[in-house]
Amino acid sequence: MANSFGRIFKLTTFGESHGEALGGIIDGVPPGITIDFEAIQKEVERRKPGQSAIVTQRKETDTVQFLSGIFEGQTTGMPIGFQIANTNQKSADYAHNKDAFRPSHADYVYEKKYGIRDYRGGGRSSARETANWVVGGAIAKQLLKDITINAFVSSVGEIFIDKPYQALDFSKTESNDVRCPDQATAEKMEAHIREIRKQGDTIGGTITCVIQNVPVGLGEPVFDKLHAALGQAMLSINAVHGFEYGSGFCGAKMKGSEHNDLFNPDGTTQSNLSGGIQGGISNGMDIYFRVAFKPVATIMLTQQTIDNQGNIVEMQGKGRHDPCVVPRAVPIVEAMAAMVLADFYLINKIYK
Amino acid sequence: MANSFGRIFKLTTFGESHGEALGGIIDGVPPGITIDFEAIQKEVERRKPGQSAIVTQRKETDTVQFLSGIFEGQTTGMPIGFQIANTNQKSADYAHNKDAFRPSHADYVYEKKYGIRDYRGGGRSSARETANWVVGGAIAKQLLKDITINAFVSSVGEIFIDKPYQALDFSKTESNDVRCPDQATAEKMEAHIREIRKQGDTIGGTITCVIQNVPVGLGEPVFDKLHAALGQAMLSINAVHGFEYGSGFCGAKMKGSEHNDLFNPDGTTQSNLSGGIQGGISNGMDIYFRVAFKPVATIMLTQQTIDNQGNIVEMQGKGRHDPCVVPRAVPIVEAMAAMVLADFYLINKIYK
Amino acid sequence: MANSFGRIFKLTTFGESHGEALGGIIDGVPPGITIDFEAIQKEVERRKPGQSAIVTQRKETDTVQFLSGIFEGQTTGMPIGFQIANTNQKSADYAHNKDAFRPSHADYVYEKKYGIRDYRGGGRSSARETANWVVGGAIAKQLLKDITINAFVSSVGEIFIDKPYQALDFSKTESNDVRCPDQATAEKMEAHIREIRKQGDTIGGTITCVIQNVPVGLGEPVFDKLHAALGQAMLSINAVHGFEYGSGFCGAKMKGSEHNDLFNPDGTTQSNLSGGIQGGISNGMDIYFRVAFKPVATIMLTQQTIDNQGNIVEMQGKGRHDPCVVPRAVPIVEAMAAMVLADFYLINKIYK
Amino acid sequence: MANSFGRIFKLTTFGESHGEALGGIIDGVPPGITIDFEAIQKEVERRKPGQSAIVTQRKETDTVQFLSGIFEGQTTGMPIGFQIANTNQKSADYAHNKDAFRPSHADYVYEKKYGIRDYRGGGRSSARETANWVVGGAIAKQLLKDITINAFVSSVGEIFIDKPYQALDFSKTESNDVRCPDQATAEKMEAHIREIRKQGDTIGGTITCVIQNVPVGLGEPVFDKLHAALGQAMLSINAVHGFEYGSGFCGAKMKGSEHNDLFNPDGTTQSNLSGGIQGGISNGMDIYFRVAFKPVATIMLTQQTIDNQGNIVEMQGKGRHDPCVVPRAVPIVEAMAAMVLADFYLINKIYK
Repeated sequence: MANSFGRIFKLTTFGESHGEALGGIIDGVPPGITIDFEAIQKEVERRKPGQSAIVTQRKETDTVQFLSGIFEGQTTGMPIGFQIANTNQKSADYAHNKDAFRPSHADYVYEKKYGIRDYRGGGRSSARETANWVVGGAIAKQLLKDITINAFVSSVGEIFIDKPYQALDFSKTESNDVRCPDQATAEKMEAHIREIRKQGDTIGGTITCVIQNVPVGLGEPVFDKLHAALGQAMLSINAVHGFEYGSGFCGAKMKGSEHNDLFNPDGTTQSNLSGGIQGGISNGMDIYFRVAFKPVATIMLTQQTIDNQGNIVEMQGKGRHDPCVVPRAVPIVEAMAAMVLADFYLINKIYK
Repeated sequence: MANSFGRIFKLTTFGESHGEALGGIIDGVPPGITIDFEAIQKEVERRKPGQSAIVTQRKETDTVQFLSGIFEGQTTGMPIGFQIANTNQKSADYAHNKDAFRPSHADYVYEKKYGIRDYRGGGRSSARETANWVVGGAIAKQLLKDITINAFVSSVGEIFIDKPYQALDFSKTESNDVRCPDQATAEKMEAHIREIRKQGDTIGGTITCVIQNVPVGLGEPVFDKLHAALGQAMLSINAVHGFEYGSGFCGAKMKGSEHNDLFNPDGTTQSNLSGGIQGGISNGMDIYFRVAFKPVATIMLTQQTIDNQGNIVEMQGKGRHDPCVVPRAVPIVEAMAAMVLADFYLINKIYK
Repeated sequence: MANSFGRIFKLTTFGESHGEALGGIIDGVPPGITIDFEAIQKEVERRKPGQSAIVTQRKETDTVQFLSGIFEGQTTGMPIGFQIANTNQKSADYAHNKDAFRPSHADYVYEKKYGIRDYRGGGRSSARETANWVVGGAIAKQLLKDITINAFVSSVGEIFIDKPYQALDFSKTESNDVRCPDQATAEKMEAHIREIRKQGDTIGGTITCVIQNVPVGLGEPVFDKLHAALGQAMLSINAVHGFEYGSGFCGAKMKGSEHNDLFNPDGTTQSNLSGGIQGGISNGMDIYFRVAFKPVATIMLTQQTIDNQGNIVEMQGKGRHDPCVVPRAVPIVEAMAAMVLADFYLINKIYK
Repeated sequence: MANSFGRIFKLTTFGESHGEALGGIIDGVPPGITIDFEAIQKEVERRKPGQSAIVTQRKETDTVQFLSGIFEGQTTGMPIGFQIANTNQKSADYAHNKDAFRPSHADYVYEKKYGIRDYRGGGRSSARETANWVVGGAIAKQLLKDITINAFVSSVGEIFIDKPYQALDFSKTESNDVRCPDQATAEKMEAHIREIRKQGDTIGGTITCVIQNVPVGLGEPVFDKLHAALGQAMLSINAVHGFEYGSGFCGAKMKGSEHNDLFNPDGTTQSNLSGGIQGGISNGMDIYFRVAFKPVATIMLTQQTIDNQGNIVEMQGKGRHDPCVVPRAVPIVEAMAAMVLADFYLINKIYK
């Protein structure tokens, strides 16, 4: 129950950061979709650690192996089983965690809830799990075809893009290490992350995601609102503490006369503070939302914490961690958005 | 599927704003809970229109009638069916909506998706539906006993409480019409809402919710994170455009060394930027989150819109609508939070 | 969870036999279906007690009141709430059950599981609940249009129809009280039921159901096999102890060379021992199955039983009960079959 | 959706008979269970082809590899991912199936439903999938501890055990190839299967399953009746055409006065025609049921069939198939029963 995502397009996953492998089963993929395996592997590589100087230097090979559901290059309608081997586990890096609880990690609540913990790493709480999501999202993207999903880093710490997304060229997102399509801002962000890393510290940030070419009618008016599903999907990503769509928190300061999106005769709207969703249902305009990530909890500075006897102990981050998580989270945001859209797209066929 | 909420503690609802009745079925309530019917009715009254000068003057009697699942004052473990009659429908107020689509309402997407629409009101998109949720939430509160849930209006337009929630006395929330526990701020908010109403306009706002006495261990590390479920629940409420918990969007600007919550020897934490949830699992500290509401779309000013032929027509809000939705949304936020907590509490029994 | 049936076409119900009302919510009904209310009421009347001399003389008015989801005679795609008042409760008939457990009823397990019991009747275990199912099934039938579902009594005690269903005229089923389309057999069954009743006893029987005009492709090959869903649906009906489809238990005695259904060039099969389903998926041939009902547990004879202190007490059935349940169960079998088919039909649209 | 089984204890599977591997994810297993890997492997071996002279001589190594959810020999509460490599695929055996549809197999409906088919074998319709179920069931058995589940072959063709199960010694089931605990009957069954095989034909049979030491209270009174879930589970097994529990189809011929199970003062019953379940809820008595298997469709005799152009073609079974499926289905019946019980056992904790 707790390890499945989606209703019709459904991803079920397994795997701890330091186990033999992770993987999953993608159910509900219609038959007859020609799979572009390179595109999937490329998405996985985008998420992978060790891609650039500003992310963790930990190496993960992350080769996706498909085990079922695809025959002669096409989906068969059967569940797609896949697996990613854990080839570069360095459990030794985590040995110091066996008895102590890392601050603002899930170690403490894990031990209290389950009474047992794979202390070699974060277990299921590790962001390693998100590699599975990226595979699911890559398949979802191939199913959605006409719908485009573009996420990018919109802020790092206090540095942010001060342009509307319409002024950005999404094709530039991958042209820099920070995954910010505005090159001038990207450079500032990168310099800031390098500085933070030198301090042994970490920094938060936000990601904005824009979904275009969505047909009218995805979502339901009560408990399956499209934006509520997107919100839940984003809040499922490690380190996320906030979600807003359309006018978001700014909308809470506005008047109705300013906020209403007036119609054009063709049903499009002149403004789009609704963020492409009205009453929980897509209206055909761009869907856009913003996701807030707290700073990574593992820092290289010494912190006080407790061990499982309640003694105060000192702890210092070891291993290879990200000073800022948002650049690597961009493909994860896209993947989760793609899976939500695929699920709503398939469910909506029932009304055709 | 689209009209059920929860996994074990599950509310399924029906009813349009202008039909005969609304109601629901609450499944998964354990047997042997003594029901306080007055407490339920009181919650429903808090949500009801027409309570004060700053909310809509529309009258709804909203008497909850229970039809099953309670015997001699106690729950039996059987589904609780309930119903609220629609006694004060004024469909005439909506006749002008038959052919025209109200801006930033769901009328347009409804017609495109379903091809048919109960134009007498907002149908299932109407906030009238939330009366059902308040009933579900009131039962959930009685199940949770020790856990307290306090929501309050934290901002209206640009006016906000500039104190941490720890400095507030929640018992004051109901002492003013705007449901803001800080009396001085409440007065400013009220004056502002009156002014906005005079203009025929509406205004957005935010609600903060604090959940206390939560046991350690509610939530799962991957797809059933407690905060993701709370986020989805809040984003299901009409007009909500944003959700943040703990440090929220502010956390995205912080450093790890500032953000980490260091442990006390007893497992509590010195700070609580995590908002009572770590890795998706409650850690026993206060859970708190903030919800952003856009301004109500129905304004008394004249707006241009289109009819179902694509012709531009003029439209002016009629009927009795809220100039600001947040005061009445306070019990709704609490109800949705209570249902999420009840569901996670029951699911967690499997680990005992 | 325990009170919902179906995935997309989903019925959720509430109500005890002696509460104020029963009712339900039908979710997942597509918009634009013109509802024939008379046809629904007629189905409910078929299930009703007191229709003939061979069933219980208990009177239930059973008028279905629809509360939502239907506008100007058409479904809107919104959940259909409905209710049936309990107008003829005679709780006094059950007062003797308060402390004693009726043999082969659910009283004992109820008390052990829930610790509380609405002793005025069978509670949720009462067959009164099936009135809700008949409403759901009647809506499902209207959605399925071309698919016909015909159930009939195929045996009572040792008396059975000794013809294949193809030799029967289903339009005769309603022409006698026992709902057996073979008039000669019907008369024997009726006489037998009268005899059994005179003895103060009850008798079991079987119902056969034939579903025709089913499109090829409903069902899934692994855990959503169409016949497994039909089996679960039938085993959910009170008093059912067995289910077989196609060749059923007889098939277990056959050889493969006798059992295989050879194809005609058009994809139909020469024989149909598969019962219209191969590998869990409908193949377009008639689906047929048989359901075994044990004799009603409430008899008018004196039986020994225990009270809730474990004392042996004597008990005699009071009130108005059926000597044979199968005539009234015919519309229930059809209703459950219709809901399964509707659900699979809607899910299958995802492959279109 | 279609590839998951269970609500809390939930198995999700993937894999075709001739793909790289099959496997699954078992979710909902509580933490702290010490896993006996040998016991799991032993169950898988019981299901494996090639064990004796009367089953298919096809060899499958079937080594289960666990990938997650178990740490230092104990379950962690995290999903258990596992995999079984397909090491002995002989696709060539199936090449003749590419264009032709085998009678009474799923080939035809597959092609009509999905438009694409892995013609190298039965795909997901192959009984190879059941190896996954046996793994899930073996874990479920270890969770259930005190509950014992014993299935055995009760008939092959016309040959059946003519004793009540109470007269059998279940420890003898594995002592003969046919898995019938009555040695004299077993020998007759074996001789019959050898004869059938010589004819190039196949034969059906039944399996009886007895579940003992079940606590009172598993199951729900309406849509989650324990026997309905068992029925659905059994009807999900390949080739199953019937299910009956307790008195089953015989009960349909009985009178209430014969059928009622009278109570002993301790709440046990003198007879047990209810089959350990009353009103859908376990009453602590033995649960027993019987499952009917049709004869295997693949025979070594020449049959007429059609190709995908609708031409009549001749076909003869090749490869290594079972002349009678019931001996190998015994562990599958037990596995499915175990998963149902584990699921209901965990769900029931919510009432504690």
